[in-house]
Amino acid sequence: MAEIYKIVEIVGTSPISFAEAVKAAVIEAAKTIRHMAWFEVVEERGSIADGAVLEFQVTVKVGFKLER
Amino acid sequence: MAEIYKIVEIVGTSPISFAEAVKAAVIEAAKTIRHMAWFEVVEERGSIADGAVLEFQVTVKVGFKLER
Amino acid sequence: MAEIYKIVEIVGTSPISFAEAVKAAVIEAAKTIRHMAWFEVVEERGSIADGAVLEFQVTVKVGFKLER
Amino acid sequence: MAEIYKIVEIVGTSPISFAEAVKAAVIEAAKTIRHMAWFEVVEERGSIADGAVLEFQVTVKVGFKLER
Amino acid sequence: MAEIYKIVEIVGTSPISFAEAVKAAVIEAAKTIRHMAWFEVVEERGSIADGAVLEFQVTVKVGFKLER
Amino acid sequence: MAEIYKIVEIVGTSPISFAEAVKAAVIEAAKTIRHMAWFEVVEERGSIADGAVLEFQVTVKVGFKLER
Amino acid sequence: MAEIYKIVEIVGTSPISFAEAVKAAVIEAAKTIRHMAWFEVVEERGSIADGAVLEFQVTVKVGFKLER
Amino acid sequence: MAEIYKIVEIVGTSPISFAEAVKAAVIEAAKTIRHMAWFEVVEERGSIADGAVLEFQVTVKVGFKLER
Amino acid sequence: MAEIYKIVEIVGTSPISFAEAVKAAVIEAAKTIRHMAWFEVVEERGSIADGAVLEFQVTVKVGFKLER
Amino acid sequence: MAEIYKIVEIVGTSPISFAEAVKAAVIEAAKTIRHMAWFEVVEERGSIADGAVLEFQVTVKVGFKLER
Amino acid sequence: MAEIYKIVEIVGTSPISFAEAVKAAVIEAAKTIRHMAWFEVVEERGSIADGAVLEFQVTVKVGFKLER
Amino acid sequence: MAEIYKIVEIVGTSPISFAEAVKAAVIEAAKTIRHMAWFEVVEERGSIADGAVLEFQVTVKVGFKLER
Repeated sequence: MAEIYKIVEIVGTSPISFAEAVKAAVIEAAKTIRHMAWFEVVEERGSIADGAVLEFQVTVKVGFKLER
Repeated sequence: MAEIYKIVEIVGTSPISFAEAVKAAVIEAAKTIRHMAWFEVVEERGSIADGAVLEFQVTVKVGFKLER
Repeated sequence: MAEIYKIVEIVGTSPISFAEAVKAAVIEAAKTIRHMAWFEVVEERGSIADGAVLEFQVTVKVGFKLER
Repeated sequence: MAEIYKIVEIVGTSPISFAEAVKAAVIEAAKTIRHMAWFEVVEERGSIADGAVLEFQVTVKVGFKLER
Repeated sequence: MAEIYKIVEIVGTSPISFAEAVKAAVIEAAKTIRHMAWFEVVEERGSIADGAVLEFQVTVKVGFKLER
Repeated sequence: MAEIYKIVEIVGTSPISFAEAVKAAVIEAAKTIRHMAWFEVVEERGSIADGAVLEFQVTVKVGFKLER
Repeated sequence: MAEIYKIVEIVGTSPISFAEAVKAAVIEAAKTIRHMAWFEVVEERGSIADGAVLEFQVTVKVGFKLER
Repeated sequence: MAEIYKIVEIVGTSPISFAEAVKAAVIEAAKTIRHMAWFEVVEERGSIADGAVLEFQVTVKVGFKLER
Repeated sequence: MAEIYKIVEIVGTSPISFAEAVKAAVIEAAKTIRHMAWFEVVEERGSIADGAVLEFQVTVKVGFKLER
Repeated sequence: MAEIYKIVEIVGTSPISFAEAVKAAVIEAAKTIRHMAWFEVVEERGSIADGAVLEFQVTVKVGFKLER
Repeated sequence: MAEIYKIVEIVGTSPISFAEAVKAAVIEAAKTIRHMAWFEVVEERGSIADGAVLEFQVTVKVGFKLER
Repeated sequence: MAEIYKIVEIVGTSPISFAEAVKAAVIEAAKTIRHMAWFEVVEERGSIADGAVLEFQVTVKVGFKLER
């Protein structure tokens, strides 16, 4: 039987890089979502304080297989 | 520890204006979601009846902090 | 038999708000188009004069059922 | 009182066609979501194996009315 | 002398597939438009009832040569 | 009273340049549309024959004031 | 001689509506920019606090004629 | 060692449906490309003759693993 | 040390062609900006009067190196 | 049997205009590609030197029929 | 009184990563802009020399509060 | 004589970061393509396994000068 997936949108943050922000988002999502299979980056933003980057913010869509 | 946010997509409606449709969506979402922080407008549509606007429909993405 | 719809693009204007500009566009379109069912906002612009907004301009796509 | 809708994103798959992939996604979603009203196609992809299409994958946004 | 074309936007519907919805739109358009030459898909949506796809809706832009 | 505009989509062609293709589209449209006020380029394409550009094709949206 | 315009991007905010946020942005811009002629909406967002919309935020591009 | 993929863009055609047009493109591509893994739909168009759809045309990006 | 660039958005106009409108925008910008390195076209529009193109308007983003 | 096309992406340059840049790209492509049928403009950029446009750069997708 | 923000577009470069390119852009901007609050990534490009990445180039929009 | 460039689309992968995935794609491409000059990021995705990021996948367009 053909598979069905659901996609949720999450924003991860990191003071270091975009890649670390993605990793943080996925690790957090793993606490409540099983069978995650892929992510795609939707938006890359960040906050600035005192004239320097404070935080990288990456919005990712995460896809996971629905259990049936 | 860096914050993580989740984004959900909601459509609010109002017979009056786009702003009222957004407010309606946010108030409804507040019944089940805590820590909402921002919204962004994704689409503005509406229905027409008898040659006049019946309803404004605004699709918003709403971001909220995940409790950990 | 399945329905067919046609879509036309109209720009409404208003000195007050985007919602009023949409309403004006729909009311004008109603003079020559019957069975209008929905609209979607394509673009929101406006004119400025003497350092203040003079007019809100909203481009909407309006869908209506073809009579057969 | 004005209606509020929620939108979820689902990926349906089918070895036959894009339309079948959409139908599969909607039928699966119906197991946990009530009052679904419309869908819109977000992306059409697929997998290839041995030089032929193995599976059509359609990402749809599905809108449903919130019960209040 | 160089050719000029006009483009109109039509929504076809079908309970079966996206391709059938396109065909329905083109056949209906043929009742009032001559010299249609091409179409391009702008949007694919649909309606859902009782937890299953009720109707596929395809918005197409149809181009036709202006007679001069 | 606030003005209302209608937008139509036309494809002009020219063997010389994109600008000439736009001019051709506008001149042709002027035969049936009055009060045209602006255009915006939607797409620039063209045909190739024998390894050289045969024709420039520019799709423009043309806006005109509705007479009331 | 042909005119030249410059475009700047400004974010206006308002607790009331998108239109008021645009007006606020234009009035503020008028303090330092002369000959503003038009605006176009680039993005509509907002902040949420205590489960209700706190502020509408509209990003506009504002065009003005360069003095020569 | 991490994998590298190449993406090529192909237009398949079919008188029957979008899915058949995709299948035709993939089968043709298989004559010269090995290790194809996925496709994504970029554009759906078609030609019209005598007031009916003549041909469905689907532009797909096809990804394949580079042999090393 | 790595270079930093700034991007400004300018609208050039010309009665002749899109290319001339770009040239006009760049020449005007050169009066106040040094070290301009590239441009990219953002939008192509124009005005129409008496049923013919009056003016081509091209919005360009212009990048220039910041002096340090 | 239904036709299959391949699309390649090329950047043509010209000191004169966007149209000339497209022509240059197509003539160059003709040296190695047969049966080219159409092009579509993907991006229009250019380089600036000494405060004036040095070169127009047009990225085009070129479609050609695969020989079988 | 509601806040107003201005957005400027800057390109940062780095031989190391996209994140470093963003940081470089923000630190440079801080020399002339006060009250910077956020950035969003608009484009990620880079230059290549001798078959390897020479430089990562990230275009960011930077928002800052206008002092009043 | 004006230069002509060709653009190809490649997907690089890396377990570490987006920047490393780009570098991997460029180094691999260098095995068969000479005179590569720039890249632009088209898409950033990745795979997830056991609730953590397994691989970063970056689709880049790579431009190189055609030898003549």
